[in-house]
Amino acid sequence: MTPAAQILTTLRAAEHGVSSSDLCQKLKISRAAVWSHIESLRDAGFEIIASPHRGYQLISSPEQLIAEDLLSRLAGKILIGRRIQTLQTTSSTNDEIEKAAQTGEAEGLVVFAESQNQGRGRLGRKWSSPTGRGLWFSVLLRPALTANECTQLTAAAAVSLVRAIRQSTGVHAGIKWPNDIQIKGRKVAGILTEMSAEIDHVRHVILGIGIDVNQTASDFTGELSGIATSLKLALGKAVDRAQLAEQILRELDADYDRILNRQFPSIAEEWAGHCTTIGKEVIVDIGPRRISGRAEALDESGALLIRTQHGRMERVIGGDVTLTK
Amino acid sequence: MTPAAQILTTLRAAEHGVSSSDLCQKLKISRAAVWSHIESLRDAGFEIIASPHRGYQLISSPEQLIAEDLLSRLAGKILIGRRIQTLQTTSSTNDEIEKAAQTGEAEGLVVFAESQNQGRGRLGRKWSSPTGRGLWFSVLLRPALTANECTQLTAAAAVSLVRAIRQSTGVHAGIKWPNDIQIKGRKVAGILTEMSAEIDHVRHVILGIGIDVNQTASDFTGELSGIATSLKLALGKAVDRAQLAEQILRELDADYDRILNRQFPSIAEEWAGHCTTIGKEVIVDIGPRRISGRAEALDESGALLIRTQHGRMERVIGGDVTLTK
Repeated sequence: MTPAAQILTTLRAAEHGVSSSDLCQKLKISRAAVWSHIESLRDAGFEIIASPHRGYQLISSPEQLIAEDLLSRLAGKILIGRRIQTLQTTSSTNDEIEKAAQTGEAEGLVVFAESQNQGRGRLGRKWSSPTGRGLWFSVLLRPALTANECTQLTAAAAVSLVRAIRQSTGVHAGIKWPNDIQIKGRKVAGILTEMSAEIDHVRHVILGIGIDVNQTASDFTGELSGIATSLKLALGKAVDRAQLAEQILRELDADYDRILNRQFPSIAEEWAGHCTTIGKEVIVDIGPRRISGRAEALDESGALLIRTQHGRMERVIGGDVTLTK
Repeated sequence: MTPAAQILTTLRAAEHGVSSSDLCQKLKISRAAVWSHIESLRDAGFEIIASPHRGYQLISSPEQLIAEDLLSRLAGKILIGRRIQTLQTTSSTNDEIEKAAQTGEAEGLVVFAESQNQGRGRLGRKWSSPTGRGLWFSVLLRPALTANECTQLTAAAAVSLVRAIRQSTGVHAGIKWPNDIQIKGRKVAGILTEMSAEIDHVRHVILGIGIDVNQTASDFTGELSGIATSLKLALGKAVDRAQLAEQILRELDADYDRILNRQFPSIAEEWAGHCTTIGKEVIVDIGPRRISGRAEALDESGALLIRTQHGRMERVIGGDVTLTK
């Protein structure tokens, strides 16, 4: 962590404030250096007050996502988020991770952007990412999994999102298979998992996540009207994006650990508990092919098992799902 | 096809030569244009004689691989090789295809290079690609397969190579699972299959192939000594690379068609017939994991089934195989 991130971590951990001399001692830097870092943090939008008795106190954090701030919240104890970049704008955070992956970046890098001008969803679809309203970010992973097993990562990310949203906001979201997070039937978040692999060796996986956080109803126009929602709309008040981001990275980190430790069955169980698709009559369109039947369960690889009208069990790992009842 | 490729196709198809006026008529170009193309072909190393009675005759083709020449041999009737590039040198032909894929190139592009300065094998290993001695090339595919099913493409490429080598040279090569082509226990060719995918949607697959064609014993030094061979060494004479390339592209095209038409079982059967691994006691090292037992069969996805000493059947889709007996 940088000195600025260490200062933020220390201020957050302190109940009543931290004296300048405590900061000097802790960071092993001079009083002037502490002062200079505090000033930079204030310039970045952190409200930090200083009083003779209590020392420095962190009152509030800026609206803008700041890498130092996120790193300070995670306090360096996790793999996913060991390195964080926050950009104002980019084509797509998945593109940023792809570039980093190709230059040999280790796993755990997370890139956030305040806006994406070519944000994308599954199958090359457009993803709307208005400035500052959501969390648009991507994670670089280099799991020792086969290409086939990587389906597990999408399921893991989905349960991470559901848990983090509930813990940060109290909102209970559900999962529409394979990768939509919904609130009352409206999409609030999506996951785009991309990978680069040899047949028997995955080079890297990019977990791209988009969450509609603080949009108002008027932000969802056109084709999004009626099918999309935000956490703010569900909750009736704005959500602290940095706090939510912190919680999501913690949950992702924990679930990635479960995957690598071959605990996918426990994730699949949790997933099924949140899934609004299981038990429903569905139509799945996979390219030109259409399968209809009852969504029965998730198999050990994250695929959806559908019992067709003819009683046959079909295993599908992708496609568009429509509930028919 | 370009006029030059059309001229080559016409000259190859003619038993006794083609008159200038026939070429004019066929290509719908002037006599001067025909002459100019013939001159360009001669400059490129094609030996074309002209006689008053017989017209133009193609006597020989250059050593160098030339895209026009390969296109003319395939005569435009196939998907794999519908577009061909021949480069003098590149980092790796897989890199060239990756760049083309990212700019939206359609499937079927094939890139050959006379030499690669960063040729690679599986798992990031170096692949030696000396100038003009082998066939180093890559194919862009965009199959409607899942990431898991793409294993089939490596198996298909292996049977294509074995067939093409036999048809072009009479040499019987075998397959060492998963992707080595061997002659009498020495490696003569390798396949590196790379893919870019979403979880439920393969964007593109790059089939990279390297074949040791005209190396002599002194070309295989150091770690290659004793484990690698060339078709020339096996056959006792040099092999026409362009003719072999043509045959390989034809076979790849046919086998790709079989895969897309869900005829993988017939490929798996052919594969098993050529496989020198099946029926042998093997050790497979997959990262830190080691499986030993008898290689029994290839399953429907191209994975190797190994019966361990404890009687359990293990399914492996990658790793390094060592024969133990």
